[in-house]
Amino acid sequence: MRIVSVDPFYVKVPQVSHAADGTQDSFLVRVRADNGLEGWGESDASPLVCLAAYCCPMSHGNIINITESLLGETLDSVADVARLHAKVLRNGLDIQQVHHAYAAADIALWDLLGKQLGQPVWRLLDGPQAVAHPKRPYASVLFGDTPEATREHAREIRAAGFDAAKFGWGPMGKFGRENDVALVRAAREGLGEEGLVLVDAGVVWGRDDATAYERACDFAPFRIGWLEEPFLGDAIDAYARLAARKPPVPIAGGEASGCYRNAEDYLLNAGVSFIQIDAGRIGGISPAHRVRKLAEERGVTYVNHTFKSHLSVAASIHVFAAVDRFRLLEYPTAGSPLAQALTERPLGRGADGLVRAPDAPGLGVTVNLDTVKKYLHPVKIELAARTIFRQPVP
Amino acid sequence: MRIVSVDPFYVKVPQVSHAADGTQDSFLVRVRADNGLEGWGESDASPLVCLAAYCCPMSHGNIINITESLLGETLDSVADVARLHAKVLRNGLDIQQVHHAYAAADIALWDLLGKQLGQPVWRLLDGPQAVAHPKRPYASVLFGDTPEATREHAREIRAAGFDAAKFGWGPMGKFGRENDVALVRAAREGLGEEGLVLVDAGVVWGRDDATAYERACDFAPFRIGWLEEPFLGDAIDAYARLAARKPPVPIAGGEASGCYRNAEDYLLNAGVSFIQIDAGRIGGISPAHRVRKLAEERGVTYVNHTFKSHLSVAASIHVFAAVDRFRLLEYPTAGSPLAQALTERPLGRGADGLVRAPDAPGLGVTVNLDTVKKYLHPVKIELAARTIFRQPVP
Repeated sequence: MRIVSVDPFYVKVPQVSHAADGTQDSFLVRVRADNGLEGWGESDASPLVCLAAYCCPMSHGNIINITESLLGETLDSVADVARLHAKVLRNGLDIQQVHHAYAAADIALWDLLGKQLGQPVWRLLDGPQAVAHPKRPYASVLFGDTPEATREHAREIRAAGFDAAKFGWGPMGKFGRENDVALVRAAREGLGEEGLVLVDAGVVWGRDDATAYERACDFAPFRIGWLEEPFLGDAIDAYARLAARKPPVPIAGGEASGCYRNAEDYLLNAGVSFIQIDAGRIGGISPAHRVRKLAEERGVTYVNHTFKSHLSVAASIHVFAAVDRFRLLEYPTAGSPLAQALTERPLGRGADGLVRAPDAPGLGVTVNLDTVKKYLHPVKIELAARTIFRQPVP
Repeated sequence: MRIVSVDPFYVKVPQVSHAADGTQDSFLVRVRADNGLEGWGESDASPLVCLAAYCCPMSHGNIINITESLLGETLDSVADVARLHAKVLRNGLDIQQVHHAYAAADIALWDLLGKQLGQPVWRLLDGPQAVAHPKRPYASVLFGDTPEATREHAREIRAAGFDAAKFGWGPMGKFGRENDVALVRAAREGLGEEGLVLVDAGVVWGRDDATAYERACDFAPFRIGWLEEPFLGDAIDAYARLAARKPPVPIAGGEASGCYRNAEDYLLNAGVSFIQIDAGRIGGISPAHRVRKLAEERGVTYVNHTFKSHLSVAASIHVFAAVDRFRLLEYPTAGSPLAQALTERPLGRGADGLVRAPDAPGLGVTVNLDTVKKYLHPVKIELAARTIFRQPVP
């Protein structure tokens, strides 16, 4: 088939707050082929900056926008998806945002190809012999403002049927050691002795490996599954120093990986036990799958990072569905009305509480066009009084 | 002083071609303070995508645009520049383009602070005891389409008074081993036995270290000063494999570094002898200077990457003026009429052929406002029928 349109959409809720909630807006891309099929994808990134990478005028041979790279192209095989990824990156060599921006399109291409070939994406990725293993979803929530509120949150999550939860950000790291410990204790108490408690420090210790090590020791008695993002995303040096101290809990990181090398850098140099990849940031399913392969080689556990709609949850699970030992799935349980209604149905949990990659062709989730229309913020960009981008109709 | 305006400008020549000529357009930022002073800077990046990072609506606490981070801020010291750099990166944690985009503003802040304090930027960077050492400029040109054309180019460069030149891209790596060798031989013949010949492969060998090693051996008899960018910017693995083969010529790379960690990654893991940093991509003078410090520690030679106007040449030279042993300066000798006229005067060569960092306050070059006006492509961005960016007047 031939690609006939590449349509970016900026959707957002009316009021966006400073809260660390990535579901308040989204960047969507729809790719349509000449056979009437279409695929959809979502980036976890600034919608306007991403959109600019789809319409920016050429600066020279290394700054050519994504739309121009894709329009008219052939898409019939897995090799075509790889070829187009390489083409877009080569043409956009000097567009720093290209990975964030292209993520949505790469996901859309996998969705589209799967629909054409009548195969789920995980099978296209890992071959006809592959089996999709169910994943244990962990509820991803913020710490409450106080230990009491955190305990209450944890109880609610448990009541909602989750036996694993990640608590992140908020007060963690901001009000002293005692409060940090009290927060983790509360999470453990609320989730129960059997639950899997994960802690996300939300880059709060910057590059300070001494404090991160101290907290890792403090948290160990509460048997946390990992301590996530103790440092800034680019602080590979701090990760390496922490690893050298041999902390008593596993360290997780990597969600900031905005291209394959970033993730490779984590896997080779940061000493993490869990590599967390957001397909919506690293450039799509293609590079995420490549990272998963490297994680398998290195004995590191791959896990998705997802804090968007279930379109992104679906994109994420296909990447590592085929690997039995990568069992955990980040699973947003809340989020804005936009995120919750973006797909016609969520990627639900089974009766056993586990989540399975769909067997339906493509991603296996359907975008709700009414939701896109309801939250659409049409963009128009003029350059020297000429319109270079006008919003396509959803 | 207080920052009262942050104004981005998209300038370009009327007809942009695919040629690997980064001077066909530019992204400029002017920062004005409440005392009437202003500073200017330039990014080597997609103007529209950068501009979006100055006006994109907030997505959440990690996607806040650059303008919002800077407006109303205090700027009175070197520490303030560092503080603002950290603030912009923290607020733009999930804006991948933030480094490319902020480069122009960071450079503008140094220019502005230098003007306020009556000091050249190099002295602000390296202290009152620092001395600005003259640099040997190498002319940066493309290979001719044929060896003959390349020999002619090299002769012209020599006639223009340069004893050092870098030949890049074009046919290199594309028409077989013999042609590659003939190109380098022609460059050596044209520049003369005494000249410094540098070769830029323009990422042509992708990740193929075997071919890069073979060419390094082929080129060694022509005594080239370095072989630059044999691989894609993120192919640190290929750089490391090439280094392990111990090639007979020095390897240079790093221009693609879009943030400090990228450059650190080169310095720690790629085994390069020369680290090439574009202040207009890595996020400005601040992170470039930090890379220079690390290069000093690691015994690697720092050199600028610059293929823009003399505003960028000036920004680049301040970064390493104070280090005597970092002697080479990439020096664009041609470029579009826009680039050539962007500053009122170029940063010229002395009678001895060397280039010196200006002693005047700030960057020491003046932006020609008529040039900005002549090539300005005003941008207007609407979101849901509301104008979120309207072009400021130059």
